[in-house]
Amino acid sequence: MTDAHTITVSASGVEAFRVNAGQTFRITDPEGGQVGDLFAYAAGDPEEWLSASHTRAVVSRLFPKPGEQFFTTQRRPILTFRQDRSPGRHDMLIAACDAARYADLGRPGHASCAQNLLTGLARCGIYSHAVQQPVNVFMDVQPSDTGDLTWTPATTSPGDFVVFEAAIDCVVVLSACPQDITPVNHGGPTPLVVTLRDSASQQNAPVFDRVC
Amino acid sequence: MTDAHTITVSASGVEAFRVNAGQTFRITDPEGGQVGDLFAYAAGDPEEWLSASHTRAVVSRLFPKPGEQFFTTQRRPILTFRQDRSPGRHDMLIAACDAARYADLGRPGHASCAQNLLTGLARCGIYSHAVQQPVNVFMDVQPSDTGDLTWTPATTSPGDFVVFEAAIDCVVVLSACPQDITPVNHGGPTPLVVTLRDSASQQNAPVFDRVC
Repeated sequence: MTDAHTITVSASGVEAFRVNAGQTFRITDPEGGQVGDLFAYAAGDPEEWLSASHTRAVVSRLFPKPGEQFFTTQRRPILTFRQDRSPGRHDMLIAACDAARYADLGRPGHASCAQNLLTGLARCGIYSHAVQQPVNVFMDVQPSDTGDLTWTPATTSPGDFVVFEAAIDCVVVLSACPQDITPVNHGGPTPLVVTLRDSASQQNAPVFDRVC
Repeated sequence: MTDAHTITVSASGVEAFRVNAGQTFRITDPEGGQVGDLFAYAAGDPEEWLSASHTRAVVSRLFPKPGEQFFTTQRRPILTFRQDRSPGRHDMLIAACDAARYADLGRPGHASCAQNLLTGLARCGIYSHAVQQPVNVFMDVQPSDTGDLTWTPATTSPGDFVVFEAAIDCVVVLSACPQDITPVNHGGPTPLVVTLRDSASQQNAPVFDRVC
């Protein structure tokens, strides 16, 4: 669902859109407590994608913070993390939920971020069955001193947002995580909203021709 | 290079071999200070591989420790970490070194774990250009309280080893990391040695028909 300036990712749904180098997009959590699985691919080459393990190799940090960049499988910057108006928890360790996960949870056929990714890519003409590791915006995973990971329901408040700037032309897929069995999304799945801006003018950019 | 029971991975080189469910393989660092990039694929389906992000999702830990399993993109166990006779540092965060990394370091065309992986897979009849995230045995990466990662040269002593057991039939690729520009491998690249055993008998198993 879109209007001239925003893309609404429905609860448990997905949207895919194209962003040019220099444009920014804001991801807002309108109701709070919602995780978004974010994927990005080089526009000209869907074999080059935002890679968590390459990003860690370059920035030497577990989790992203504003000012840092995300890197591709070719070690090129693809997104810059421009602004964070949230509690600042964004996971970059955990795989997207998928069919196998929901089968393990006794819910085969449940919507998943993995299937959402493939659906979003297909809308952009990218037919793949490979599910890359996402950046899980607003997802709160914390390591202890001993390396054990604690998963906490997303702590975002209504209206919290993050802003990313495209370093290269790219295809972005955002899944509003449909997890409603384990408490990743506080209070259950809700929508996310994307606002696209032209970085130079800081004006909202029309998105109707950017959505796949 | 192999004899009846061991496979030697030459310094900066790669070997690929097949392991049946229940068999174990030991990776020994004969000279100490050497990192091995370890990859594993389901024997019947090279699209299913050992995935660091899925493993973290299941075991909820940053780094592997004995008794834990590694999981595939289909969330199936593929390897079990059976024994650790080393300082216990095995990275599961950082991408394989690759052509782009060495180009950044001013050494285009340098040998890399990424190219080694593709070479090893090709020997097994798997033609791929996708480089999955490895388990970096003996590689010492440590996070601080603030999530910053510190890379330290491998701290293994001569003869240190780790043992893995195959949970399913799989293809394993082991690259002896050729990094000689940054101090990941203490003292520079050296070989690794793989010993294959039949888990039931604990006898060394002949490997000459297991090497690709």
